[in-house]
Amino acid sequence: MSHSSKIRNSVCDQVTEFRLVHADSTWSRQTADCKCLEGRLSDAKIYESSTEVGVTWTVVSPIIFTYRVIQSERLLGTCNDTLLFGHISNPTEIQALKNNSKVMKRFIVIDETVNDLYGSQVAAYFEARGVKYKILHLPTTEENKTMMLVTIILEEVHKFGIDRRTEPIIAIGGGVCLDIAGLAASLYRRRTPYIRVPTTLLAYIDASVGAKTGVNFANCKNKLGSYIPPVATFLDRTFLCTLPRRHISNGMAEMLKMALMKHKGLFELLQKEGRSLLDSRFQLRIPENVHTDAASVSTRLAIETMLEELAPNLWEDDLDRLVDFGHIISPELEMKILPELLHGEAVNIDMAFMVYVAHERGFLTEEEKRRIIVCMQSLELPVWHSDCTLDLVQRSLTERLKHSGGLLRMPLPTALGKAKDSIVCQAFKKWCDEHSETTMKPQ
Amino acid sequence: MSHSSKIRNSVCDQVTEFRLVHADSTWSRQTADCKCLEGRLSDAKIYESSTEVGVTWTVVSPIIFTYRVIQSERLLGTCNDTLLFGHISNPTEIQALKNNSKVMKRFIVIDETVNDLYGSQVAAYFEARGVKYKILHLPTTEENKTMMLVTIILEEVHKFGIDRRTEPIIAIGGGVCLDIAGLAASLYRRRTPYIRVPTTLLAYIDASVGAKTGVNFANCKNKLGSYIPPVATFLDRTFLCTLPRRHISNGMAEMLKMALMKHKGLFELLQKEGRSLLDSRFQLRIPENVHTDAASVSTRLAIETMLEELAPNLWEDDLDRLVDFGHIISPELEMKILPELLHGEAVNIDMAFMVYVAHERGFLTEEEKRRIIVCMQSLELPVWHSDCTLDLVQRSLTERLKHSGGLLRMPLPTALGKAKDSIVCQAFKKWCDEHSETTMKPQ
Repeated sequence: MSHSSKIRNSVCDQVTEFRLVHADSTWSRQTADCKCLEGRLSDAKIYESSTEVGVTWTVVSPIIFTYRVIQSERLLGTCNDTLLFGHISNPTEIQALKNNSKVMKRFIVIDETVNDLYGSQVAAYFEARGVKYKILHLPTTEENKTMMLVTIILEEVHKFGIDRRTEPIIAIGGGVCLDIAGLAASLYRRRTPYIRVPTTLLAYIDASVGAKTGVNFANCKNKLGSYIPPVATFLDRTFLCTLPRRHISNGMAEMLKMALMKHKGLFELLQKEGRSLLDSRFQLRIPENVHTDAASVSTRLAIETMLEELAPNLWEDDLDRLVDFGHIISPELEMKILPELLHGEAVNIDMAFMVYVAHERGFLTEEEKRRIIVCMQSLELPVWHSDCTLDLVQRSLTERLKHSGGLLRMPLPTALGKAKDSIVCQAFKKWCDEHSETTMKPQ
Repeated sequence: MSHSSKIRNSVCDQVTEFRLVHADSTWSRQTADCKCLEGRLSDAKIYESSTEVGVTWTVVSPIIFTYRVIQSERLLGTCNDTLLFGHISNPTEIQALKNNSKVMKRFIVIDETVNDLYGSQVAAYFEARGVKYKILHLPTTEENKTMMLVTIILEEVHKFGIDRRTEPIIAIGGGVCLDIAGLAASLYRRRTPYIRVPTTLLAYIDASVGAKTGVNFANCKNKLGSYIPPVATFLDRTFLCTLPRRHISNGMAEMLKMALMKHKGLFELLQKEGRSLLDSRFQLRIPENVHTDAASVSTRLAIETMLEELAPNLWEDDLDRLVDFGHIISPELEMKILPELLHGEAVNIDMAFMVYVAHERGFLTEEEKRRIIVCMQSLELPVWHSDCTLDLVQRSLTERLKHSGGLLRMPLPTALGKAKDSIVCQAFKKWCDEHSETTMKPQ
């Protein structure tokens, strides 16, 4: 049903639909049948009806979000223009900026650890280009993921001064850093463009590709935030060289999520090559194989499947979300024992439990269940945790129910690489029986 | 140019356009010519191209904002359902909620002064309907318009607990109260619906009808915020009965703005009936004349013209905004001498100066200029202020230039009720000469 007919049915019979035409510096309302005015037509509509006590207007206005996710290489290299101009799609515009004598400014938010490793390269990059820059390094850990850090960024951005249309804030770091900087940018002047440069595998395939920003609040994960996508995300796997092995595993959990929900081929790739990807930190073994190497293929598939689910549901208006797999009980578990578990580890424990649920429900065979658990273990991901009690599971499910419009929407794997939304709450015992003894605790 | 051709031109020749189809619980990419999958089609698109070092994706995803602006009467009356259900357009949905045995919850943010006048009525309203409610009253003055109050709201909302899909936060008060509560709502769980109930004339015709939320930051007006419209705004002019006369004038400044920019008829109405509207506080003199009374007509025209300009530009991506008339030098003036001037008073001083600019530029005749100034004075609005120095004017214009993509975009009246975007910077002397002696200072 179109917007217009929905509104017409619901309010009363006397609804007038107006289009909006821009002519002579002014927007004017125009009924659908009137052709008196010529000019630029807006996608927005206004519906008007009279009531006994006045007028009712309904505004329907679409906002189009456009953002780019760009795989690059040696982002901080002297010859690579991506960091400075990659968010601009129009080559003429880039040339105009290069020719312009005005000094460009960039504000960079960077994670403290990343700054230790790459800070001087970032500085050198902007210096070589004559850009006036400010690098703000912050301890962007999960425990510090609060409005406090957002406020610090806002104060520094304000002091530094940027053109809020043309000088995007650049965030370089893991998911927490990107989420915090994204929220600051979306608040500053009601929306300042920002760029995401993920330096962890988790951020590379997860935080980077969507619209979400956020901070923790009242001990709840990402309770405050916005749905404002970056203007661009620049992906460079060479950052992963300096990542601890545990963090590579951590990222592979989100990759596995997409595999289990959507892509059997990706699951099989992880089964077969997962361990060696972990060993090689997703670096190319043969430089020529840029499009066929397991590292390239797996990251590409992870992003592709993720974008497929996110793009049509950027603001999460649709409650049935496959990407929520692994995110039903993990938020509470993660916050409860912070900082013991990394995000992907908590997600994996959640997924492992849900695999048991799916098996109990008859969606997965014993053999499929085993294959998934073995794959998780080969990626060095935890598949069970003593703090993930039945009580916590049930509380999480209740909380989920509360915010799901009354239906417990819970994505489950129904076969390898196929999802189904459904409900269960009892595979718990079997899960504990099989893993409480043998499980290894993450360090 | 369509999005697809824009992206195609700019990236390279090998761009593949994908539509997104929902089938079997999963979103799948599909090229435009492939018809293999049947299912729900998304408005979002993904464009993909290969580069030497990887893949570039461009996501284009429209989000449709829908909100209602409803004129009502005796909103707090026992028979009026608007406050509880007015944001829902579907009557079946309303009936289902009424039949549901689940106790409804509402969180209300109310201005302290408004609470003194109407707090008990608000409480009685929800009590009579068996709604579990929490009324949070706050000193929502311009000086307090900071993240501090937003945080207090967030903490209380979190403690109280609401269903973030179906239990909108209700804000009752002037523009500051609505802006603060709106920002809190747009941050909570990344977006919680909220309702605006303006109790001042200024909020009735201005803050209520758009998407903007915000707080002051670093001594700058509305430096932080979001563009998230309320699900609904409920308008009830009876609140204006208790408004001080000066605040009625204050609101009339924004009304005059729309008149000067867009509507000669509204200007003439304000010229003719402005003083008596001020005296009657916009109340109906003859109850039957609900659609023809000057109070009804003027408020309706003010909202209509405002919506016309806002709906096509909800996120202010278009920099040429007529509604910015009066908002070029007023933000700095207002913050500089806070709390001496009300918002509309500062706006009026700005507009008065711009009328002089337009006259110097030859856009307005001497007679038109005089008529506008006399009209302002008859509405008891200040037309000059000693703190509005040439230095401040020039600083504001420079600041404006900085954030306007290099062009000084400045709406000016070109005749009564007709706007033009243009530039000037010198009518200042004449303005001072004619008003510095005679002007009355607002109390």
